[in-house]
Amino acid sequence: MTAPTPCILLDGKSVATANEEALRQRVLALKARTGERTPILATLLVGDDPSSATYVRMKGNACRRVGMDSRVVTLDARATTADVLREIDALNADEQVHGILLQHPVPAQVDERQCFDRIAIRKDVDGVTSHGFGRMALGQPAFGSATPAGIMRLLAHYGIGLAGKRAVVVGRSPILGKPLAMMLLNADATVTVCHSKTANLADEVRRAEVIVGAVGRPRFIRGDWIRDGAIVIDAGYHEGGVGDIETKGLFERCAALTPVPGGVGPMTISTLISQTLEAAERAA
Amino acid sequence: MTAPTPCILLDGKSVATANEEALRQRVLALKARTGERTPILATLLVGDDPSSATYVRMKGNACRRVGMDSRVVTLDARATTADVLREIDALNADEQVHGILLQHPVPAQVDERQCFDRIAIRKDVDGVTSHGFGRMALGQPAFGSATPAGIMRLLAHYGIGLAGKRAVVVGRSPILGKPLAMMLLNADATVTVCHSKTANLADEVRRAEVIVGAVGRPRFIRGDWIRDGAIVIDAGYHEGGVGDIETKGLFERCAALTPVPGGVGPMTISTLISQTLEAAERAA
Repeated sequence: MTAPTPCILLDGKSVATANEEALRQRVLALKARTGERTPILATLLVGDDPSSATYVRMKGNACRRVGMDSRVVTLDARATTADVLREIDALNADEQVHGILLQHPVPAQVDERQCFDRIAIRKDVDGVTSHGFGRMALGQPAFGSATPAGIMRLLAHYGIGLAGKRAVVVGRSPILGKPLAMMLLNADATVTVCHSKTANLADEVRRAEVIVGAVGRPRFIRGDWIRDGAIVIDAGYHEGGVGDIETKGLFERCAALTPVPGGVGPMTISTLISQTLEAAERAA
Repeated sequence: MTAPTPCILLDGKSVATANEEALRQRVLALKARTGERTPILATLLVGDDPSSATYVRMKGNACRRVGMDSRVVTLDARATTADVLREIDALNADEQVHGILLQHPVPAQVDERQCFDRIAIRKDVDGVTSHGFGRMALGQPAFGSATPAGIMRLLAHYGIGLAGKRAVVVGRSPILGKPLAMMLLNADATVTVCHSKTANLADEVRRAEVIVGAVGRPRFIRGDWIRDGAIVIDAGYHEGGVGDIETKGLFERCAALTPVPGGVGPMTISTLISQTLEAAERAA
């Protein structure tokens, strides 16, 4: 028996922090080139969900840490789809704004998909439009959905190859499971997408060499379903620092693992900031 | 031992022919409503590939059989991307034209993806734009890529449920494997996409309850990889009436099977015609 290879902690927080220096340099260069024009991310917050407000604040802080700026537009919890569309139209037209983020989720009466799809594709730095999804999926230039794109950056940072690996994504949401499946497929993984209708989830997960929890339910994926040596990516975050995957005992026997928190979350924000800067660079 | 359920022949030719009567009635109703305006599919053929010319002719004939018309625009084999884009722009602007089909494949010097994506989404009746792909994948109204959408229609016609079934798609092209994977996923199948980098294709195929050959290589998927009782969809067509799947002995032990020819092919054309009519109905 050979000694097991130690598990790599996929430390999104450190990777994101380390990236900030490079982003700061790019912002400086851009400002020099454009006469001190600051790249701006506009965040649109509808309603008063406290975690959404926290996320919006974190994203604004991340902008400022690299020398960019953010502008928060807040709408009342009773806002209609038309209200949100009006704000998006204004931000689309505003040349000071390089990226637009509509904080997910919006109140039930707002048609989130319609609002997402109203964002101009050149400003869709959070990668939520169906047009951007289609372009990314078919291998065309586009901003990827921030969380899955952040996961791909994290894997690339650690030099984790995906070609030929069996990847299983549990969850099929429009901004997480579906785009991640297409990104993994474009990276040459053999990709399976599982969801609430999957007949035997445990069997599917057992086959995964790369397993991604993207289902949004605390500890839904059981640790004993996961094979030794798997690469474990947890995109969930729930109260008490719990993800979608039950991680007890996993660290001792998997090849790589994202911590919760500090794994996928910081990479999401880092990707958003990086894509906003890219949008500003292109607009300059 | 119970007697095996007989295999259903997924007879695309008959289904497509039977659909034509309903299409004819819809065309008549539309013409009555619009003062005898005939729905028109414009097909754009670049170069002189004989099978492409045949496909274009078959599509034109299918239009005329239901009372619609087609207009063929042909470009020289030396045409550039700019030449093709110019024709597409003209067809986009032409109010007589309701649907536009750029026959795949185009000569190597033409950027097919750029040309596909130039087609106005309301006229993209062949479902090739990345914007349309994104909308379909995320559950928004859009014309699906004709071949995968035809496969879904064929399965629906025979009442074959997909929810919870393990579907394996072999191939990941932008107009076949990828859109079909998203359609199967939206129909609640557990979907795996395999391709040239898949480590052990035979193992993946063995697990399939629904297997789709979408790889474009004759008899690439071996019959003995396919489990008893599987639903077998062959989207390939090669010289001599051969598909992507080796079907010897399969009919005796699978649950359903598309013949080649006469399975998927006629449904592709039927879907194209149906989507062109839908575009004309919307424009009326």
